[in-house]
Amino acid sequence: MSGSTLGTLFRVTNFGESHGPAIGCVIDGCPPGMSLAEADIQQELDRRRPGTSRFVTQRNEPDAVEILSGVYEGQTTGTPIALLIRNTDQRSKDYGEIARQFRPGHADYTYWNKYGIRDPRGGGRSSARLTAPTVAAGAVAKKWLAEHHGTQFHGFMTQLGCIDIPFESMDYVGQNPFFAPVHDTEALEQYMDGLRKSGNSCGAVIRVIARGVPAGWGEPLYDKLDADIAYVMMGLNAVKGVEIGAGFASARQLGSEHGDAIAPEGFASNHAGGILGGISTGQDIDVKIAIKPTSSILTPRPSIDVDGSVVEVVTKGRHDPCVGIRAAPIAEALLALVLMDHALRHRAQNGD
Amino acid sequence: MSGSTLGTLFRVTNFGESHGPAIGCVIDGCPPGMSLAEADIQQELDRRRPGTSRFVTQRNEPDAVEILSGVYEGQTTGTPIALLIRNTDQRSKDYGEIARQFRPGHADYTYWNKYGIRDPRGGGRSSARLTAPTVAAGAVAKKWLAEHHGTQFHGFMTQLGCIDIPFESMDYVGQNPFFAPVHDTEALEQYMDGLRKSGNSCGAVIRVIARGVPAGWGEPLYDKLDADIAYVMMGLNAVKGVEIGAGFASARQLGSEHGDAIAPEGFASNHAGGILGGISTGQDIDVKIAIKPTSSILTPRPSIDVDGSVVEVVTKGRHDPCVGIRAAPIAEALLALVLMDHALRHRAQNGD
Amino acid sequence: MSGSTLGTLFRVTNFGESHGPAIGCVIDGCPPGMSLAEADIQQELDRRRPGTSRFVTQRNEPDAVEILSGVYEGQTTGTPIALLIRNTDQRSKDYGEIARQFRPGHADYTYWNKYGIRDPRGGGRSSARLTAPTVAAGAVAKKWLAEHHGTQFHGFMTQLGCIDIPFESMDYVGQNPFFAPVHDTEALEQYMDGLRKSGNSCGAVIRVIARGVPAGWGEPLYDKLDADIAYVMMGLNAVKGVEIGAGFASARQLGSEHGDAIAPEGFASNHAGGILGGISTGQDIDVKIAIKPTSSILTPRPSIDVDGSVVEVVTKGRHDPCVGIRAAPIAEALLALVLMDHALRHRAQNGD
Amino acid sequence: MSGSTLGTLFRVTNFGESHGPAIGCVIDGCPPGMSLAEADIQQELDRRRPGTSRFVTQRNEPDAVEILSGVYEGQTTGTPIALLIRNTDQRSKDYGEIARQFRPGHADYTYWNKYGIRDPRGGGRSSARLTAPTVAAGAVAKKWLAEHHGTQFHGFMTQLGCIDIPFESMDYVGQNPFFAPVHDTEALEQYMDGLRKSGNSCGAVIRVIARGVPAGWGEPLYDKLDADIAYVMMGLNAVKGVEIGAGFASARQLGSEHGDAIAPEGFASNHAGGILGGISTGQDIDVKIAIKPTSSILTPRPSIDVDGSVVEVVTKGRHDPCVGIRAAPIAEALLALVLMDHALRHRAQNGD
Repeated sequence: MSGSTLGTLFRVTNFGESHGPAIGCVIDGCPPGMSLAEADIQQELDRRRPGTSRFVTQRNEPDAVEILSGVYEGQTTGTPIALLIRNTDQRSKDYGEIARQFRPGHADYTYWNKYGIRDPRGGGRSSARLTAPTVAAGAVAKKWLAEHHGTQFHGFMTQLGCIDIPFESMDYVGQNPFFAPVHDTEALEQYMDGLRKSGNSCGAVIRVIARGVPAGWGEPLYDKLDADIAYVMMGLNAVKGVEIGAGFASARQLGSEHGDAIAPEGFASNHAGGILGGISTGQDIDVKIAIKPTSSILTPRPSIDVDGSVVEVVTKGRHDPCVGIRAAPIAEALLALVLMDHALRHRAQNGD
Repeated sequence: MSGSTLGTLFRVTNFGESHGPAIGCVIDGCPPGMSLAEADIQQELDRRRPGTSRFVTQRNEPDAVEILSGVYEGQTTGTPIALLIRNTDQRSKDYGEIARQFRPGHADYTYWNKYGIRDPRGGGRSSARLTAPTVAAGAVAKKWLAEHHGTQFHGFMTQLGCIDIPFESMDYVGQNPFFAPVHDTEALEQYMDGLRKSGNSCGAVIRVIARGVPAGWGEPLYDKLDADIAYVMMGLNAVKGVEIGAGFASARQLGSEHGDAIAPEGFASNHAGGILGGISTGQDIDVKIAIKPTSSILTPRPSIDVDGSVVEVVTKGRHDPCVGIRAAPIAEALLALVLMDHALRHRAQNGD
Repeated sequence: MSGSTLGTLFRVTNFGESHGPAIGCVIDGCPPGMSLAEADIQQELDRRRPGTSRFVTQRNEPDAVEILSGVYEGQTTGTPIALLIRNTDQRSKDYGEIARQFRPGHADYTYWNKYGIRDPRGGGRSSARLTAPTVAAGAVAKKWLAEHHGTQFHGFMTQLGCIDIPFESMDYVGQNPFFAPVHDTEALEQYMDGLRKSGNSCGAVIRVIARGVPAGWGEPLYDKLDADIAYVMMGLNAVKGVEIGAGFASARQLGSEHGDAIAPEGFASNHAGGILGGISTGQDIDVKIAIKPTSSILTPRPSIDVDGSVVEVVTKGRHDPCVGIRAAPIAEALLALVLMDHALRHRAQNGD
Repeated sequence: MSGSTLGTLFRVTNFGESHGPAIGCVIDGCPPGMSLAEADIQQELDRRRPGTSRFVTQRNEPDAVEILSGVYEGQTTGTPIALLIRNTDQRSKDYGEIARQFRPGHADYTYWNKYGIRDPRGGGRSSARLTAPTVAAGAVAKKWLAEHHGTQFHGFMTQLGCIDIPFESMDYVGQNPFFAPVHDTEALEQYMDGLRKSGNSCGAVIRVIARGVPAGWGEPLYDKLDADIAYVMMGLNAVKGVEIGAGFASARQLGSEHGDAIAPEGFASNHAGGILGGISTGQDIDVKIAIKPTSSILTPRPSIDVDGSVVEVVTKGRHDPCVGIRAAPIAEALLALVLMDHALRHRAQNGD
């Protein structure tokens, strides 16, 4: 019944509900002596912040983070770092009508079955808003990994609904609201405008790459690096699939084709996605995730209520028509958290 | 550096190497009072046993399991159940030549980087042989779930290399060496014979379904039911992708299409794969995994050795040309272990 | 390096420093559907609050708790309960002089050796102030245990420095600032007044009893109920000894004397302190803890500073002359947290 | 309900029953590259072995350990080390008569209440025989600590029943069956002979010291070094009290007396027992444990059976009249396991 903690040595415990007083997390296990300020975290939160374009939810949250502990005179002390984000733009009245109904595709039904009680305001704890503390914790992990290993994270969109997005350049990713690695995003904008008008939603595919991961991180069994990555990625709201390296395409490859040849100067390809036997190879860690369409839509859907009576559900309020649009920085944070944990595990083993 | 334990309340700690004295596991947390005999476990081990057809490794291992503890007069006592499987058919001479080389696509390179030492006999701990203790533990979980919730597991192959396998009937799965749900497997046999002659290997896709899982199992964050499933599945040897329900196809669906409509008599579809918000819906849990082609092949591959010198690797010895062929019972076991853990978590929460 | 989480199923993650912005905790695993208000927690915090008599530190902290999550319309939802206590009476200037010195008997020296950095303000994380979140979490555990099992907790002082305190009645415990079960505490007051005048400090022994614990809670090995109790008690600031039941006196008993005879109506004695083989017997859980004298005293003490130079340390500022005086409610909270955890473990095992 | 695993980074999972096929453990997290042979472990097992003098149980067990995994060509590989000890001298007939009775002071009653089933043969899992795997694991920890930090462990008896044993020299400890640091043990022998004739049992106090522990090991909260030590020690069969440093005597000390003065050359005393604020000081870790008298005695005791009927219990069979006699090497092993875990935690934090 507990289960809100991520990681073994770099442990993140998440708390909060979408419309409660606050959300946040406690990071336990950050090494001492790293400089850390709220601005380091805020910049990552701002990347996933709602209300920044017409393609995402119009909920207006500054998501201002406060460091409550674990930092003294601008340095981490090695003790738990508690991060607090107050919820400021709650409009509970928007959600009152669905307190007794189960939205198709939403966690309403399962929370009700699990707990016998649920906080219906904005989806309560099942809201994608709870990824904000994860992003905040990920910012700390990213900073440490960058300083100690030069690791860099690159998340971007490769598919929006039915539109495949070619890779042009990482430089474009920060220049459009889709985290798309393309110069021209007009087709994406038109697609989203059409969806919004029709009161519908769509899915997406996000790819995230970590560059600068040393060889030798991960455990053979069961806590493999890829297993832990799959765990955090599939645990992200709306994710229904995870691939590493060649992913499902590897089922169609021959052994002579899939296995990445090794030369003194390095690997000739990266079908492995940077992981062999659950342990990093030193190549890019390469992950793709499939995100389902948002379940909260204006299109009427048949469902039942808590009494089992037939209802027609129309979800008003403010929602992302594609939660994948803001998912790239979240996927980066999740990957960073896994790598940070294995970085410390490796130190425990080898002492360096 | 530790990491060989799976589960929170139903905990399985795995040990062993492919050619060491023995492999096995300790199951900690099995409820008391369940009847359990070695035969209950042996029948599942026999399903994944090597040497049973010409399409799998010819290593001849009886994989006979011995219960060392936790059972008294045929009943579980609630204390740890230790399971031991002696390795009997080790031919270490087969592997001596590759002790200094890194097979492309294999864990040789990463183990070396992680530990600075590795057991080269049969792949050591990275061998798929280490799935045997997992299957043994899964047999215990399956028995408990069947008795308490009527849960049943159905693993089968849906793709072998480039061949898509249609679903005809579960009845056929046990009648051919491929765990294929089809009557006629001649095409699969010919494909594998061709591969073997060419000294190559192929991948596969396995689907596993759990029927009879109550609604309400799973944690919202981070230990979601789907997150834990992705963790165990991606952690299985050679797996490069995991899908739940509609998986990657969900990225192309509209919200009005993906969200499974609910009626008083149940859900109208199962794009969710039986999980919403990380918690079971009561529908079938539906998982697919992509398995890469075996990396140990007779086809010569360019690589390096421990000194960084260029070598050409040819892997002789006994290997599965497609590890996916024996993966169905393993995937069932992994799914059972996750569900068992969440069954106990749910009891801890709700007391029933 | 992480390690700030207590419990397996009822998990409390503690954060904060004595003079940072805030202290608090996240409780993960509280069952849903229990009524919970801030007042339920505040009443326990008020029992350990500083500044309530002349015998404790004069730091004036309201220790007002805010529930940030996990409660909806006055009921626990089963999701993490985050509790926040702002620090309000920080006077960092009091502590500036000791930032470079190591107080004998204090954690200054060890934190410095462990982290290479420390927050010197009020002892930072080593301050007994960090027991406040533990007490807050314990209040939640106490409430659940009282409602589900009728469990009651009774903490009281049995020794103050060299003064043995006889047991007269639990009724007196709440009527004096010492948590002493005696009517007349004048001798204790005089003793403390004398200590304060001499700038010295003293130790104490606290006994805590839990009444109404069902038989059958605990694990055989290693997570015994008494092992977990010893862990939390020895982990409390200043504790140097823990006894259960007859404790050290049991070493002088014969087997015929120590083993509590059993009759149909119950046990004839309780030398076991309510625990046999690591599992509760249904009798009172009976624990004693020895608390060392406060290390922060006005009496000058020889020590060294961070450069290894000889210094004479005089600790001004506000300190408890005997931290044992406020320890009874803390010991109750710790015992409640252990029992709560094992209550849920027992449910996971037996489903009731 | 699980709970048989000790440690966070150096994890020991214990299994087995006194008269089942085997007992043993899996050590997960031992660093790679340490030489390890069965003889390294066997020598520690031989120190606690039964049947070596007339003062301990006459059960004749060679306790021969087999390494099943994790060691290749005499070196640890970093993967789990499984250790197996077959039970060879089971005489189940000795115990048949007490399968339905609850021995006063024994775990019979609580196991029955916890599980509703119990293995009565030789006490099943509650037998002190289960300390053998702990000693085996401790031998691995001791070896690593000795090689990396020069740490040495010294366990010895300070009290046998009512007889206080003065400290003469560690040299004597290995020369008598009591682990007593005295030259002349005739008084101890006579005392034990008298006990045995009268069919009774007695308790003991054991002290264990670890020398050569660097400053800086331990976590501030909650996983303090002293908390973890108290956990393992109180979890040892028959232990009812744990003291660190001055222990209960510290309650009678003044602050000016207790706090160990610090000089450039080191501490002037060690009332702290080598731990301040939960973290090691670099001094000797100094622990005392109180062991209750054995509950299995020939003296008739009043009790009840599983039906609640009055019975008179006389425990025949082979038992230690004082389990404290063989406890010194066990206490050393437990202390070594805790220190090993914190050594690795410290490496994870600091990378050295």
